[in-house]
Amino acid sequence: MKLATLRDGTRDGQLVVVSRDLSRYTPAGTVAGTMQQALDNWTQAEKGLRDLSMRLDIDQIPGEPFDETQCLSPLPRAYQWADGSAYVNHVELVRKSRGAEMPSSFWTNPLMYQGGSDTFIAPRNPIRLADEAWGIDFEAEIAVVTDDVPMGIAPEQAGHHIKLLMLVNDVSLRNLIPGELGKGFGFFQSKPSSAFGPVAVTPDELGEAWTGGTIALPMLVEYNGKAFGKARCDTDMTFDLPRLISHAAKTRPLGAGCVIGSGTISNKLDGGPGKMIGEGGVGYACIAEQRMVETIVEGAAKTPFMSFGDRVRIEMKDADGRSVFGAIDQVVEQYEG
Amino acid sequence: MKLATLRDGTRDGQLVVVSRDLSRYTPAGTVAGTMQQALDNWTQAEKGLRDLSMRLDIDQIPGEPFDETQCLSPLPRAYQWADGSAYVNHVELVRKSRGAEMPSSFWTNPLMYQGGSDTFIAPRNPIRLADEAWGIDFEAEIAVVTDDVPMGIAPEQAGHHIKLLMLVNDVSLRNLIPGELGKGFGFFQSKPSSAFGPVAVTPDELGEAWTGGTIALPMLVEYNGKAFGKARCDTDMTFDLPRLISHAAKTRPLGAGCVIGSGTISNKLDGGPGKMIGEGGVGYACIAEQRMVETIVEGAAKTPFMSFGDRVRIEMKDADGRSVFGAIDQVVEQYEG
Repeated sequence: MKLATLRDGTRDGQLVVVSRDLSRYTPAGTVAGTMQQALDNWTQAEKGLRDLSMRLDIDQIPGEPFDETQCLSPLPRAYQWADGSAYVNHVELVRKSRGAEMPSSFWTNPLMYQGGSDTFIAPRNPIRLADEAWGIDFEAEIAVVTDDVPMGIAPEQAGHHIKLLMLVNDVSLRNLIPGELGKGFGFFQSKPSSAFGPVAVTPDELGEAWTGGTIALPMLVEYNGKAFGKARCDTDMTFDLPRLISHAAKTRPLGAGCVIGSGTISNKLDGGPGKMIGEGGVGYACIAEQRMVETIVEGAAKTPFMSFGDRVRIEMKDADGRSVFGAIDQVVEQYEG
Repeated sequence: MKLATLRDGTRDGQLVVVSRDLSRYTPAGTVAGTMQQALDNWTQAEKGLRDLSMRLDIDQIPGEPFDETQCLSPLPRAYQWADGSAYVNHVELVRKSRGAEMPSSFWTNPLMYQGGSDTFIAPRNPIRLADEAWGIDFEAEIAVVTDDVPMGIAPEQAGHHIKLLMLVNDVSLRNLIPGELGKGFGFFQSKPSSAFGPVAVTPDELGEAWTGGTIALPMLVEYNGKAFGKARCDTDMTFDLPRLISHAAKTRPLGAGCVIGSGTISNKLDGGPGKMIGEGGVGYACIAEQRMVETIVEGAAKTPFMSFGDRVRIEMKDADGRSVFGAIDQVVEQYEG
């Protein structure tokens, strides 16, 4: 089942059921008016939504043409956004480019930060920021949406709470990160609003590509129209999605509609620091990682962070080349206040 | 105007208007069913809520008896909870007790962490945690609730967005903090669910005690029935509440219903490390600070963190000794899963 939230002038938008091929939608209002309402009452809502989905896919319901540009993030605002860093290769590269060792505990205990969740950006809306000097970067990730998760849940049980999967662009301001991490309180200003892919899908929608712990597909990133990354989400993932949920729930319950991200997809592959797609590698899911590899291999980063006008596209395609979640496609623009 | 959210079996509870003396309430359902609904449409809702408030206070509406034990946190869940550390004395003491220098930038650039906001605890509900060894502590703070705040707002403009004030118990797990801060991603497991005082009040409700930047009243903390702290919220506050809002909004807008906390109230007073109330001082708003002072003065901390069964009460009284927000009053209990 595929769900989306259409722009309707309200803060939470209109929940719709989208056909598997992303061509048509039907309003879900008879079951739940908004995505949060569906998640608040998922056991009941899922039945009705799946019924609509099935009827839409077999043409029992005609449906309206689905237009990704009319989508808000599936949850336009959420009560929790927690982002892991499950691809530890990414973290190790950051450290290596600074000549620093990574603590070995990073391989056994997930990194996770609490993100802001009150103002998610629509997947086709511009990323508006005031200053290019902040070091504007994208981060392509996958994320889960959970129902209510009890405190202290074990990783083995946590997977049952994954109700939906999404794509994320976790926008990051690289030049603000060192100062904030140095203060010890984690990211804040260095993590502006994130955007999520147009369509949220139930895990069964992925078929064999859903491993129970992650998605066995590559994350396709295009930067200014050129292939930039195609790292696989199931390669070099140190902590799977249920493990991240368990980490988040260690000392508190998680409320329905909690969004937990994987962190930037990053493949180590054959032990090297990674290669650009043009050099036969799988490329990168953020600019920072390409810069790190440049620093390690060539002594200095040469790819700049995003300037106003630069565009990133993040998408995932199934084995038959069909878009699973629709595409995040965003231009960076100057915020004028 | 005073507002509260009563338990009614739903996730968001029932919004009610409470009389100034906290004795009676009337449902706000004719204006807004929940606190978030009121904040989403504050300009309209405020008029209707103030009308109910006025009529309740002059006995035009009889009202029902108000019972703080029936309250949820005013926002039982929120789209953002960001907590500053405006009483830099608190931070300096932490560092001093470890023999570390605090960076001088801490006096000019606010510390702020992103907190979890999906599962706030009710003000009279127990704090349930699995393990005393985590170092369970309370932190008494004040917080604001904002309407929509534009990105990049200046401190001079930010005060206009303060719609409500609340008390907070920012529960902290002291023994999990060093490990998490060492990883550089900020607090996560070390900050379980917070609780907020029963009643949220508009700034005008404080009369002359509202300075525009903070509350000119002491924060009363009782620990196991004994006076533990009475530090003033307007003493040694390095960053006022509008400054904290401006900090939070530097790189992203804040959505209506955003909650921003002051950090633990802490008074330096006459340049010393602080004194317990029994010794003529103003005491502390968290156990950690008393332990730091013990470490500095006596060489070792002697006050233990909270054990199961320990109780904390957090309240604020006006110049006439009347409770402004009602009381947070919580016992720590073992979470059984």
